[in-house]
Amino acid sequence: MAEAQVRSRERRTPRVGYQGEPGAYSEDAARRFFGDCEAEPLPTVRAVFERVEIGADDYGVVPLENSQAGSINETYDLLLRHGPEIVGEVIVRVDHVLLGIPGTDLSGIRRVLSHPQALAQCEEFLAAHGWEVVPFPDTAGAARTIVEEARRDQAAVAGRRAGELYGLEALAESIQTFPENFTKFAVIGDAPPPEAPGPPDKTSLVFAVADVPGSLHACLAGFADQGINLNKIESRPQGGRPWKYVMYLDFGAGVEEPRARAALEELSKRTSFVRVLGSYRAWRDEQ
Amino acid sequence: MAEAQVRSRERRTPRVGYQGEPGAYSEDAARRFFGDCEAEPLPTVRAVFERVEIGADDYGVVPLENSQAGSINETYDLLLRHGPEIVGEVIVRVDHVLLGIPGTDLSGIRRVLSHPQALAQCEEFLAAHGWEVVPFPDTAGAARTIVEEARRDQAAVAGRRAGELYGLEALAESIQTFPENFTKFAVIGDAPPPEAPGPPDKTSLVFAVADVPGSLHACLAGFADQGINLNKIESRPQGGRPWKYVMYLDFGAGVEEPRARAALEELSKRTSFVRVLGSYRAWRDEQ
Repeated sequence: MAEAQVRSRERRTPRVGYQGEPGAYSEDAARRFFGDCEAEPLPTVRAVFERVEIGADDYGVVPLENSQAGSINETYDLLLRHGPEIVGEVIVRVDHVLLGIPGTDLSGIRRVLSHPQALAQCEEFLAAHGWEVVPFPDTAGAARTIVEEARRDQAAVAGRRAGELYGLEALAESIQTFPENFTKFAVIGDAPPPEAPGPPDKTSLVFAVADVPGSLHACLAGFADQGINLNKIESRPQGGRPWKYVMYLDFGAGVEEPRARAALEELSKRTSFVRVLGSYRAWRDEQ
Repeated sequence: MAEAQVRSRERRTPRVGYQGEPGAYSEDAARRFFGDCEAEPLPTVRAVFERVEIGADDYGVVPLENSQAGSINETYDLLLRHGPEIVGEVIVRVDHVLLGIPGTDLSGIRRVLSHPQALAQCEEFLAAHGWEVVPFPDTAGAARTIVEEARRDQAAVAGRRAGELYGLEALAESIQTFPENFTKFAVIGDAPPPEAPGPPDKTSLVFAVADVPGSLHACLAGFADQGINLNKIESRPQGGRPWKYVMYLDFGAGVEEPRARAALEELSKRTSFVRVLGSYRAWRDEQ
C-alpha cells in the first residue's frame, strides 16, 4: 500500500502555476511543455515563483523573452532573488487576434485593451486605426473584460484560444507587426521535469564584470576556447547600484559537461560573482 | 536684417518632444539637459521620433534604460528604424511618491494607477498593502486622472513634481524598492545639442553576430586591444527573425577618436552589419 501511494504520487499530474487567466499564452506554454497538467492561473509572475518556492506548485512557467520585445526583465530579477531554478524552456508562437463581442464592426471600435507587450507588438496595426489603447495585466483578462462589459466600441488583443474560450469574434487576425513572433518561457522548479526530453544542453547564468577595458572579453575567452556557442548575452544594471552591471548569459552546453566546467572555471578566475540560474534541455520545434 | 533673422533662429529656444504629460520624468530629463526649452508632450515614444524626423521638433528625449528595470526595448527598436541619432544622454533620479487627493487616508486606498515600469519599481511597497494596480500610459497622466476622478480610494505613483503640478498630496515618499533608482534618457536629433558640454566620449552601436562559438569574443577583441571600456552590451532578437540576435553595445570613446576607428575597423572584419546609433558626451553628475 505504501508502494502504491508512492507510485501514485510520482505519477500524479504536475501542478503548474502561470501568470494570467485561462486562455493566456503562458497557459499555452504550460500545456505545450507538460502535456497533461493542472494549470493554475496566478495574478503575478512573482506569485508563480512564490508558489513553487513554498511547494504549493510543482513547477511554474514564466515569460523570459519575446522575439520582438526582448527580455522580460522582471523574470530575470525574480530568478536572481528566488530559489527555484530554470529546469526547462518552451517557445510558443504568439499570433495576436483582435477580439470583439459578436457583431462588432471595426469602424465602431474606439478602445483596444491588452497587455502592454501585446499592444506594443501590434502597434503598427493599432496606430493605423487611431484607436485608444488601454493597458491590462494580461491578454486573456482583457478578453474577459470585453465579454463582461459587452460594448461594441471595445476590442481586445489576445490569442485565438482566449477568443474561443470567451466566445468572442475574431475581427482581424495575425495583427502583430512582425508575423513571426515567439515568446520563450522558462519552466522553473526544484527538480527536473518528469519527462525531460534529454540531458541538459543549455545553461543560463549571471556574473559580475569589472568596469575596466577588456574585462568582458576576458570573461568570454573560456567559452570561445572550449568551442561553446553563446545564445544570449545582456548587461543589466544591478538593482540598487546604478550603472554597475551584471551579465546574463545563455550558452549551448549542459553545466555538467567537461567543456562547460572548464569554461566556468576560467570565468570564475575573472570575476567574483557567478551564479548558474539553471541547466536544461533547449527547446526543439519538433517537441 | 537677413543676418538678424539667422541669428535669432540660431538662438531660439529648442523645441524638445517627450512622451507623457506635463510633470513626467521625461519632461524633467528634457529640462535638465537643455535648461530653457520648449518641452512638447507627445502620446508615444514613436511620436517623439517622428516629430524630430519631419523637423517639427528640434530634439527628442526618450527613455533608454532604468537602473532597476533594464533597457527600454521600444526605444532601441525605434533607434534602429528611424533617422535621428543619439546626440546626448541625460540621467534622472527617479523618486516615486504615492499621490492622492488632499485628505486621502492610506487605509482607504483600493486602487493605484501608474505606468507599468513605475508600478514594477514600487512592487514591494504596493504588494505589502495588497492594492489593485492599474497600468497607465504615463505617471503624470495617472496623477491627472486622480485629480479628475477625485476619489479617496485611488492613488497614483508619480514624481514629486507631478504631484505639485496637479495639487495632490504626497501620502508616502520614496516608495521604490531600490532607493537608488535612475533612468537614462537619450537625446535624439539631427545635429549636436546647442551647448554640448564637450566632445563626444561615448558611442552607441548595433551589430550582427554569427551564431557560432567564439564569434562574439572575436567581435569584442578590437575594443580590448584598444583599451576601450564597454559600458553596456545586450543581445536582442532581430525583429521578424526569431532567435537571430543583434548586439547593442555602448563603449567609452568618441566615434572619431583613432582608437575607436581602429576598433570599429576590426569589428567590421568580423561582421556584415554595423550601425552607429550616435556618438555623444557621457552624462556627468555635475552637469
